Amino acid sequence: MRASDTTHALPPCSNSSVIFRTELAVRWGDLDAFNHVNNTNYLRYLEEARLRWLTTLDGPWMDDHIAPVLASALVNFRRPIAWPEDVVVELFVDRIGSTSFTLGHRILSAKDTSVRYSDGHVVMVWFDSRTQKSAALPDCVRAACTAA
Amino acid sequence: MRASDTTHALPPCSNSSVIFRTELAVRWGDLDAFNHVNNTNYLRYLEEARLRWLTTLDGPWMDDHIAPVLASALVNFRRPIAWPEDVVVELFVDRIGSTSFTLGHRILSAKDTSVRYSDGHVVMVWFDSRTQKSAALPDCVRAACTAA
Amino acid sequence: MRASDTTHALPPCSNSSVIFRTELAVRWGDLDAFNHVNNTNYLRYLEEARLRWLTTLDGPWMDDHIAPVLASALVNFRRPIAWPEDVVVELFVDRIGSTSFTLGHRILSAKDTSVRYSDGHVVMVWFDSRTQKSAALPDCVRAACTAA
Amino acid sequence: MRASDTTHALPPCSNSSVIFRTELAVRWGDLDAFNHVNNTNYLRYLEEARLRWLTTLDGPWMDDHIAPVLASALVNFRRPIAWPEDVVVELFVDRIGSTSFTLGHRILSAKDTSVRYSDGHVVMVWFDSRTQKSAALPDCVRAACTAA
Repeated sequence: MRASDTTHALPPCSNSSVIFRTELAVRWGDLDAFNHVNNTNYLRYLEEARLRWLTTLDGPWMDDHIAPVLASALVNFRRPIAWPEDVVVELFVDRIGSTSFTLGHRILSAKDTSVRYSDGHVVMVWFDSRTQKSAALPDCVRAACTAA
Repeated sequence: MRASDTTHALPPCSNSSVIFRTELAVRWGDLDAFNHVNNTNYLRYLEEARLRWLTTLDGPWMDDHIAPVLASALVNFRRPIAWPEDVVVELFVDRIGSTSFTLGHRILSAKDTSVRYSDGHVVMVWFDSRTQKSAALPDCVRAACTAA
Repeated sequence: MRASDTTHALPPCSNSSVIFRTELAVRWGDLDAFNHVNNTNYLRYLEEARLRWLTTLDGPWMDDHIAPVLASALVNFRRPIAWPEDVVVELFVDRIGSTSFTLGHRILSAKDTSVRYSDGHVVMVWFDSRTQKSAALPDCVRAACTAA
Repeated sequence: MRASDTTHALPPCSNSSVIFRTELAVRWGDLDAFNHVNNTNYLRYLEEARLRWLTTLDGPWMDDHIAPVLASALVNFRRPIAWPEDVVVELFVDRIGSTSFTLGHRILSAKDTSVRYSDGHVVMVWFDSRTQKSAALPDCVRAACTAA
């Protein structure tokens, strides 16, 4: 899917401040039979970026029974990704609620960040497996989201 | 993410008629370190269902230079999926355009289809690699979408 | 790699009795950019077969601190696997030790089991994370291996 | 599987000269439900190293009908790999034939290369899809293997 086809794609995320940026190497094994990075691996890159971000937080973001889960993911596929390639994933906060937040994302080419491979957002919820209900966002997560 | 948390999730797809239904076995290797099916594999199941559907069409749906690509994907994660488990993927048409269409999807438990693991939709575009532009939907695709 | 090229491949496993046989559907996403099932997914199919087998055993095969781990894997790639396709995985016991055993495997075409996609074997060890040493094979595993 | 369990593992590869060395970032998504890098991803890391090596060769190593395929793979799993972690993959030549060669491999911890996660070897064959027979090793491959 190409950038010129934006009429087909859902609206891009806002220009909120980036809270985390990380670089990833595409693997040859991320390609599928069409010789492009398979759509599932866009979510893989986003997951890796989120987890790297969480490990930078100044405090506990999960424990034995409370952990973040994805409630939904929206991914716009703007351009195919080839191998070899390094990508940059940028995360930014779109919305902060009491038990969840909306995290925008962009996947760019590392050697030319004006090349946007993907954008979209995910909704993350902190979920308590004991109560089977959503739990308050951990303080360190809220702090990291509002500092941007 | 649980069904009761629908306020966090984006709106579910409409109740359009199902155009394809297929059953898939979850693999143990689909689980991640949280012992649930990893979010990327929801897209994997949807991809498998779409490709099985395309192979049932009465005519060519791709050639040397025109092939379907994903423009965007929205996935709501309603419940975690465990192993072992068989899931049913249902596809239905939400919108048909000239060069693209919106395909709704549901992932259900095969042994109790009232258990909905996921829903959402994808936008598929037929793309011509020679012209680098989108191409008309193949007749067999349009026919399959409107027959439902 | 083709069946006629057996001079390049390591020796096939013995004709021990099959202790487990299961069928798996190849996914389109198992293919790589060469349009064949990627080599990593041969191990994926074998893993799925081993775990399905373990769930059939008449007794506990792991607990909080003792679990099976792979010590080594040998996979001969006899023929490329295409999509769509269903494969049969056969497991058989090559050797039983006190804390480990060697499990032979074959991957065949479900619609013509004379088509052998792969063979080889893995060494599985039961490992105790508390003592950081290998542990005795669980009784139910030993029983299943010797019953064949 | 731990280093002390070498009696269970197949013999390690020889100390041939390393022809290629590359570093890879483990992804969180490489973990499985046992919270260690899944066995299939050891093959993924080796594949990535082989392809990076091939792209460094001074000449064509595949064309429209001749391409390298794996004939067999032997992987010894010496230690579990956690996340986050960077690994180094080392490749070395064990044997060179007319149409195939045996490529040894080691997976080490990047921050302490005395930590060996895995070793083993693969047999690679150049295969001609027109004749359905193995083909002569490309000159650039032979040169790279013998230069070490």
